[in-house]
Amino acid sequence: MSTKQSQLPTSPQTLFSRIRWFNLAVLSLTPSFGVYGACTRPLVWQTLILAISYYFLTLLGITAGYHRLWSHRSYKASIPLQYFLAICGAGAVQGSIRWWAKGHRSHHRYTDTELDPYSALNGILYCHIGWQLVKPRVKPGHADTIDLSNDAVVQWQHQNYFVLVLIFGYILPAIIGGVFWGDAWGAFYYAGLVRMTVVHHCTFAVNSLAHAFGDAPFDDKHTPRDHVLTALLTLGEGYHNFHHEFPMDYRNAIKWYQYDPTKWFIYGCQLFGLASQLRLFPDNEIKKGELNMQLKKLKTTQDSLVWPASPEDLPIVDWETFQRESKERHLIVVSGFIHDIADFVENHPGGRALIVSQIGKDATAAFFGGVYDHSNAAHNLLSMRRVGVLHGGVEIAKIEPTIPSLRVVQLDVST
Amino acid sequence: MSTKQSQLPTSPQTLFSRIRWFNLAVLSLTPSFGVYGACTRPLVWQTLILAISYYFLTLLGITAGYHRLWSHRSYKASIPLQYFLAICGAGAVQGSIRWWAKGHRSHHRYTDTELDPYSALNGILYCHIGWQLVKPRVKPGHADTIDLSNDAVVQWQHQNYFVLVLIFGYILPAIIGGVFWGDAWGAFYYAGLVRMTVVHHCTFAVNSLAHAFGDAPFDDKHTPRDHVLTALLTLGEGYHNFHHEFPMDYRNAIKWYQYDPTKWFIYGCQLFGLASQLRLFPDNEIKKGELNMQLKKLKTTQDSLVWPASPEDLPIVDWETFQRESKERHLIVVSGFIHDIADFVENHPGGRALIVSQIGKDATAAFFGGVYDHSNAAHNLLSMRRVGVLHGGVEIAKIEPTIPSLRVVQLDVST
Ligand code: HEM
Ligand code: HEM
Ligand SMILES: [Fe+2]
Ligand SMILES: [Fe+2]
Ligand SMILES: [Fe+2]
Ligand SMILES: [Fe+2]
Repeated sequence: MSTKQSQLPTSPQTLFSRIRWFNLAVLSLTPSFGVYGACTRPLVWQTLILAISYYFLTLLGITAGYHRLWSHRSYKASIPLQYFLAICGAGAVQGSIRWWAKGHRSHHRYTDTELDPYSALNGILYCHIGWQLVKPRVKPGHADTIDLSNDAVVQWQHQNYFVLVLIFGYILPAIIGGVFWGDAWGAFYYAGLVRMTVVHHCTFAVNSLAHAFGDAPFDDKHTPRDHVLTALLTLGEGYHNFHHEFPMDYRNAIKWYQYDPTKWFIYGCQLFGLASQLRLFPDNEIKKGELNMQLKKLKTTQDSLVWPASPEDLPIVDWETFQRESKERHLIVVSGFIHDIADFVENHPGGRALIVSQIGKDATAAFFGGVYDHSNAAHNLLSMRRVGVLHGGVEIAKIEPTIPSLRVVQLDVST
Repeated sequence: MSTKQSQLPTSPQTLFSRIRWFNLAVLSLTPSFGVYGACTRPLVWQTLILAISYYFLTLLGITAGYHRLWSHRSYKASIPLQYFLAICGAGAVQGSIRWWAKGHRSHHRYTDTELDPYSALNGILYCHIGWQLVKPRVKPGHADTIDLSNDAVVQWQHQNYFVLVLIFGYILPAIIGGVFWGDAWGAFYYAGLVRMTVVHHCTFAVNSLAHAFGDAPFDDKHTPRDHVLTALLTLGEGYHNFHHEFPMDYRNAIKWYQYDPTKWFIYGCQLFGLASQLRLFPDNEIKKGELNMQLKKLKTTQDSLVWPASPEDLPIVDWETFQRESKERHLIVVSGFIHDIADFVENHPGGRALIVSQIGKDATAAFFGGVYDHSNAAHNLLSMRRVGVLHGGVEIAKIEPTIPSLRVVQLDVST
């Protein structure tokens, strides 16, 4: 059940019996007639403006309404705003709020598992559109939707869904174009069908692109990613790594320079008294997520570097042996380790003389400031030249480590 | 001796007795006559080109010659290249190689101490020019310069320094301008005096600006900083944090997009067989420096955040008390901690019902995947709501910490 194919039909017969004919019709006929219209009708500028405005309004119905308001309850909307968003969302023709939000809550609760209705397990094409065309083998996981059942606007929209879709998805654009600039068919094609196709695939990109490409600045446990292109297509919904980590936050992006117009819209509504109780995840906890991811990155860097040999891996050598071998090799002792610095004698920035004078000796004090207080880089370089650990005989200076031991992770779970 | 004033004269008398008259004359008369010339002579385009070329050549004498070749021996130069650089450097009029490199080695060896001839301790003005105008109270610290005493070109340049300065600093530009486009005075003023003043202050900026402003991506133990503006003024010498940490590296900048034309020049000379043995600090050790600085930054972030209470700071509560208090408060147990989630019940993205059903219970299993496998963010949020530690009675599930404990620092010094 957990393989890539789990949601996909295995034979033509199964496929046929599981096709969602209605969805298939909408998602194939809309673009087909749209393309036909675009090839046969010239695009006048008033229709272009209508199509663009209609793109923004209907997509906003999905992002600010279906998604952030009803799926996640990330803010409270006044009744007029609720009706406005319910109608705009219907114009996007992506199912009723009730159906959409239920599936979306499943998606959050069961992300990347076979109970997720558009699980990234099934490949990018399935996430984008496949799940809408073919019934899944496994029913999507259960999610709590009592609040939606008790919501008057959600119920009203669900009951009148087909009428609303007809009027606001198809007919209204044609009426506007016909009445105001005599281009009913053009408006129907461009602001109706073409616009709807664009809104569809932009929305779908959140499930496909933003679960496959982009950065994970907050958590990489699951597939959601912050994907700028998707954000540009979807009024800000592409910052999907943030969103899955902090789903009840009314924002999908937190940096001022990130494109999240849905957030700006909700914030604007608050200024006009139309929205309230905008929910924010505490900044302190958001920063912890970022910190953890940055640490992970540094851990990767750390693991990619070569570190000095640890004492356990080195031979233990006594002072006499060290003295004897120093006659043949360029050995010096620093901090209890024996180092072979043959390759460095001629390259020493402090000069050849200083370093040669320390061969066969304990140069700890000289190295740690007695002669020169060496940089971290010098300490790192030296430690890579360890060839042994000195045993007994020489008093080892008590030295503070140069690189402070940072306690970088606070464990806050269990124990 | 370690205060900001240590190198500065205390009374007018002392000041007067310590002035370096020759330097003062050069560093004040050159700009004065330069400004006079610029006000009285129009600038013709040939002279402008000469001045700019002369700026590049003489500055290169300092950066590729005085600094990277002779002060740091970061590569080997063929004899023709040595003479070329020695002559160009003389044209910059900043003292002989021998004098310059000796002081510069002191500067590296005793950076930021009173033995540093241009120590940042003494303020930015002193670093920029003050140290050249007034003798220091404390003699600069000793640095090994035997190699320079044994260097034929260095000795030749030192012995003929004043002749070289006269010819290549002042007379040659005038001759070129006079012979080729009849503008001897213009070339003297612009390509001689004005150009020299610019080269002076650009070079000085490394000691002033690049020890005061900019980033410390490799080490912040001392004042040197990577300062882009200074790099633009000085053919790449402004990446001074890198340089002080890795002084024997022929590069001052390692990223391809950073402006370090001196490095490009040396590399080019190698292609033509004029330079060899270009020294590189091992990449592995450079990355360790960067890693350590990045960790320091994250440590600062970590310290600025509020972390959950530790068990020692919480009351120990038994199961019966927990049960009793849960009747009045929204208490749940997860991982042995008691949490008060009153403020979260209505905000829970998993719904009110699920969370309320766990009040007065041990919700560890539910929270850790039994019902929902919560994100890191949820764990962080929960841990901030700790109000007690549960004592006895309930078996605590053995749980892996969600945030992995990264061992981010390898101590490579001592112990
Ligand atoms: C053991 C006796 C040593 C003495 C007395 C000594 C002394 C010095 C001095 C005086 C400098 C300053 C150079 C300058 O003026 O720029 C210096 C720099 C340096 N030394 Fe050593 N050194 C010793 C050993 C080593 C060893 C064994 C290594 C590494 C294998 C090393 C690595 C370096 C490095 C990388 C620098 C340049 C970076 C910096 O300024 O900290 N030294 N050393
Ligand atoms: C104790 C019993 C709990 C249960 C059974 C439970 C269940 C759930 C479920 C099913 C979800 C998925 C929501 C969705 O569909 O988007 C969820 C999300 C979440 N829960 Fe809980 N929860 C519990 C307690 C808590 C507590 C005490 C906190 C914090 C104080 C918390 C914080 C969160 C957060 C932040 C999320 C959203 C982030 C994420 O998807 O991981 N939960 N919870
Ligand atoms: Fe998602
Ligand atoms: Fe969502
Ligand atoms: Fe410096
Ligand atoms: Fe230097």
